[in-house]
Amino acid sequence: MIVSPEPAASDPAVSGPISGIRFGPDGLVAAIVQEQATNQVLMLAWMDAEALRRTVESGRTWFWSRSRQEYWCKGETSGDRQWVRGVRYDCDGDALLVTVDQDGAGACHTGARSCFYRAFGEGDGDGDGDGDGGVSVAPAPG
Amino acid sequence: MIVSPEPAASDPAVSGPISGIRFGPDGLVAAIVQEQATNQVLMLAWMDAEALRRTVESGRTWFWSRSRQEYWCKGETSGDRQWVRGVRYDCDGDALLVTVDQDGAGACHTGARSCFYRAFGEGDGDGDGDGDGGVSVAPAPG
Repeated sequence: MIVSPEPAASDPAVSGPISGIRFGPDGLVAAIVQEQATNQVLMLAWMDAEALRRTVESGRTWFWSRSRQEYWCKGETSGDRQWVRGVRYDCDGDALLVTVDQDGAGACHTGARSCFYRAFGEGDGDGDGDGDGGVSVAPAPG
Repeated sequence: MIVSPEPAASDPAVSGPISGIRFGPDGLVAAIVQEQATNQVLMLAWMDAEALRRTVESGRTWFWSRSRQEYWCKGETSGDRQWVRGVRYDCDGDALLVTVDQDGAGACHTGARSCFYRAFGEGDGDGDGDGDGGVSVAPAPG
């Protein structure tokens, strides 16, 4: 299902691509958050059209909480704010990649830098979530 | 909804964490694919428990296609295969981060290295999808 949100007509950065984003049947699209300086993947959360509009306009990351059914601005209570440096969207317009500068200790409510601090095959993971992949799960080719 | 897939009992890498993954009401979980060497985010796709099991066991990325309603192994037809180096999962177990070595030109069916080759506010983007975020969408703090 394609939802056509109301773009902010005065802002060309919003009125363009946002109308091409394909929100799911629940009105949401997955948003990957990546740290600009390190390329570390910090978290994945969900945006509806309004959260995306707020994100682009405010320069802070806004999401829709599926569990609480409400908007939240990352770091508003914890202080671990994210400052948006860019918003990308994928080839079929149904996923977002938000690059940010991360304030504070990190993105995860556990205190970890990244929410992806655990890896299959290594117990609790190495805790850094820096994309080094933890362990190999299968032999490499060649 | 929490789905409890059947783990492969003979493989400790699968029988552990996979049982803690929280698949959505549709049985799927979002899987971010990141290139190990560069930390570039290549794509986002969807896995059910069977696709995740195949990914971990085979060392190739397997997904569930929501549009075609079938499993697909990345690169099986295009040759742009992904070799799995690690599988991470996030703090609440409802998102995956798969680190890979990417064969061929890239992950995107358009021929781009990354599916995230377009950014808000810059037309078609700079085409590299390397996580540099394209343009700033709001002023930085301080």
